[in-house]
Formats: sequence, structure tokens, C-alpha cells
Amino acid sequence: MKIVISGLGIIGGSFAKAIKKYTDHYVIGINRSPQPLRMALESGAIDEIGSPESLRNADMLILGTFPAAAVSFVRENAAVIPESCIVIDSCGIKSEICPELTALASEYGFTFVGCHPMAGKETNGFVSADADLFSGASCILVPCGAPEDKTDAVAAFAEKIGFGKVIRTTPEKHDRMIAFTSQLPHVIACSYVMSPVCPEHDGFSAGSYRDVSRVAKINSELWTELFMENSAPLTEEINILIDNLSQIRDSILSADRDRLQALLAKSRSIKEELGE
Amino acid sequence: MKIVISGLGIIGGSFAKAIKKYTDHYVIGINRSPQPLRMALESGAIDEIGSPESLRNADMLILGTFPAAAVSFVRENAAVIPESCIVIDSCGIKSEICPELTALASEYGFTFVGCHPMAGKETNGFVSADADLFSGASCILVPCGAPEDKTDAVAAFAEKIGFGKVIRTTPEKHDRMIAFTSQLPHVIACSYVMSPVCPEHDGFSAGSYRDVSRVAKINSELWTELFMENSAPLTEEINILIDNLSQIRDSILSADRDRLQALLAKSRSIKEELGE
Repeated sequence: MKIVISGLGIIGGSFAKAIKKYTDHYVIGINRSPQPLRMALESGAIDEIGSPESLRNADMLILGTFPAAAVSFVRENAAVIPESCIVIDSCGIKSEICPELTALASEYGFTFVGCHPMAGKETNGFVSADADLFSGASCILVPCGAPEDKTDAVAAFAEKIGFGKVIRTTPEKHDRMIAFTSQLPHVIACSYVMSPVCPEHDGFSAGSYRDVSRVAKINSELWTELFMENSAPLTEEINILIDNLSQIRDSILSADRDRLQALLAKSRSIKEELGE
Repeated sequence: MKIVISGLGIIGGSFAKAIKKYTDHYVIGINRSPQPLRMALESGAIDEIGSPESLRNADMLILGTFPAAAVSFVRENAAVIPESCIVIDSCGIKSEICPELTALASEYGFTFVGCHPMAGKETNGFVSADADLFSGASCILVPCGAPEDKTDAVAAFAEKIGFGKVIRTTPEKHDRMIAFTSQLPHVIACSYVMSPVCPEHDGFSAGSYRDVSRVAKINSELWTELFMENSAPLTEEINILIDNLSQIRDSILSADRDRLQALLAKSRSIKEELGE
């Protein structure tokens, strides 16, 4: 395949590197700034620096940019995307972008399959891209009515470049689950490190501090967009969390040992039933 | 030294194993149930199964039990602890136990140095004990007026058995910091997994879910005691967290992108200033 990747940040760059490491596909890179393109070309992560014109012969287009930029790129270049081309994105939200991308696909004849690689780092840019970033990770596909053979082709491609698991779901289910599994931990980490005692933690901390605070080293621009575009499911999860925190706090304040121990035992049993 | 360890769970058992691995000290184990004692003796983690009478010749007593049990054990056996003996505990809270242990030390002539090894696992009991559990971890000492040479001796002992850092503080500072670094992450993890969508996370989750939920596999009996005995600092930290979560939620609900991005950028800068 000829694969065009638009946006060579950590995710687009990792797609490029994984494709070159695990397949024989030809990779063309497009990026707003020239620096990542040069680095990608020099490191062999892409075969060629391209332009939107490169889409005319593309078998696959991978959108590696933020959600709004991904939609704009397709909107502006839809006319040159061939009907045989499969377009996939890599955005962390789906309800906000899938309807327009599906409509463009339908209007211009190409295929769109929503895609969210469940992998990342606390660093950004092509310098952080890694051929094995997706190794063993889950790849969530949101077909939105795409033909099954095309979705199957994307699933096979994902497994080929290292993903450990491919699941298929709807935009709504994706966004509800991601609010909990990914966005809420980022909200928690940011809220946690804002405690006034955080700067003094050294010497008093161990794995618990490290793990809960890890993702507070957040890309504020990206996550502002992701949080805003998944407002309803995310704020619902924040409210559920605040309610559960309040229950634990109130059982401590009222010195209700039995209630507190029952809450903690319930949490433990949830983890145990999941086999974790 | 002749070292008596009371309580051969994961912490007491790890002390025993680390002492036998890294020193030539003689270790005597005491435990309510016989099973861990037999395992510890067979594995060479202790040299002898003892009784409170063993304290008569002890140079050091390590309390490996829960806080209330640790205080009871010293209260009941204070009369046979020699004046030359250094008593250290391993409890996760200090204001609640240090005054009585310091008073007993003063009354009977031995030395008490509060001690909190910042290491643990999500599993319990002697079977989880590990000679290198403390490797590189922080050891918090709470001298409570103990002579400096005795505190120095405990610090040297801690470094000998693998701790990477020894810090000294007061019970109040210890409890305020631990509320944030250790107890709050446990409260967060338990509150987090109680979301109704948690059981469906598989396929939608990655490192963020794994890290924030890890310690929800909690020892409910131990942590109920620790939370109850550190009520004021912990509930204050929970309130601070709820306030920070609410700020993020409200900026999303009011679609105030600038405010949300400023909050996230602040979190990132806190981590960056800590060099994390």
C-alpha cells in the first residue's frame, strides 16, 4: 500500500515507524512544520515528504493530528482522496468527529473507519515516536457503517504493526468508556498534583504517588480539546468519582468503620472479579 | 545485633529477609499465627521462633503489625524490653501511635524511633515478603525525641538493608504528607473503580487505567485503620482534591477553554518543576 500520514507527532510518527518496521508499505509524510518531516525521512520512518496532492494515489490515509485539525484536513482535501482509499484517524474522541468524516466519505466515495490506538507517553512530537509504541496495546475501531471488508483490512493492518487486540464499537460507547479509562485518570492526575503539599512529596512518596500523578505531565492544548469535545460523558464520570470520594470521606468523618471497610472491600472485589 | 520482629506479614517478613540477606544480625520472629513463622524459619528469613521472653536479650525490636496491635504489643511487654534496645515500628500513621510509644520508652528506659518504610505491594502476608522490597525506597524516621546516636544507628541500619534514602520528620508532618502521597491515592483508586462502567474497561484501557486503579486491590482492614487514625489530614486532602476536580469539571461545563487549559498547564508545570 501507499500510505499517507498527516501529522508526524508521537502518534503519527509511531504509525510511520511501525509500518516501516513491520510491513513493506510505502509511507508518505505530511506535516505543518518541516522539522519532523526531515527527521522522519532521515530516520527511515517515511519514504517521501508529500503534500495533499500525494493523496491522489493513496491506498490509506492516517490522520495523526488533533481532532479539529484531522476533520479540517479531510474536508479540505476530500476531492483528491480516491474512492479506493481507507481513511483512519487516531483521535481520542469519536462522537464529535465521526459524523462529519462519515458524511465526507459518503459524499466523495472513500472509506472512513474511526481508529483510536490506546497507547501514549507523557512526551510529545516525532522525537517521542516509537516503532513499538503500539506493541500489545488495544486498537479501538469505530467503523460508523464502513463496509466490513474494509474494517477487516484495517484490523489486519493494526495487528500487523503490533497492536495486541482490536475491538469494534460505536462512537457513543467509545466516548463513554474513554471518559472513564483515559480522560478521568488525566483529570485525576492534574487535580491531585494541585494539592499545596505536592511540591514537598520527595522522601515521603513511593509507587502510589508516582502512578497517580504520572499523566499530570499533560499536553494541555490536546487534552483541553479532548475534554471539551467529550463534555457530557466526562463530567458525568467526574461527578460519579466525586460522589464516591465523598462517601469514603463521610465514613471517615463519622468514624463509621464498618461502612468504610465495606466501601474498600467493594473496590477490592471489583478488581478481583476483573482478575487484576 | 539480636533483632526481634513482631509480625511477619509482608513488611515484617521483608525486614527479616532483607536483614538476613544484607547483614549478619540474628533474627527472632514472633507472630500470632504459627504458619508464617514456620515459613520464615524454613526459608532462612529468621534464625529462631521466639516469644515475648526473647525481648530480654534484644538489641532491636521491629514492630511489623498494624498500628493498634503494635502499640498493644509494646504496652504488654515493655517490662522485659532492655534499656539498650531500640524499638522501631513500620506503621503508616504516626501521630496516633508515637505519643504512647514514646511515653512507654521513657518510662521503661528503652529507645523508640518511629519508622515508616515507603514500600508495599497489593498482596499481603509472609508469602509476599521480599528481601528487596525496600530496595531504593525512602525510609521515614520519626525520632520523637530519641537520642541522635540511636536515630543515626537506625538510619545506618535502614541503608544497610537496602533503603535508598532516609529522612527524618515529626509525626505531624509525616501524617500530613502521607495523607497526600499514600492514603489519597488509595482513596482515589477505590473511588475510581466504583464507576459503573469499570467492569467493561477491557479493550478500552491502557496505562492510565492500570496506574490509577492499581492500589484499589486494597487490604480493607489495614487501610480502614490507617484512614480512621489519620482522619483530619486525609479528609482535608480529599476535600482539596474534590475542589480541584470541581474546577476542571466546571470549566468543561461552562466551555471555558482558557480556564481549562490554564488548569492543565498548571498541573504540567508542577510536575516539571519537580523534575518529574
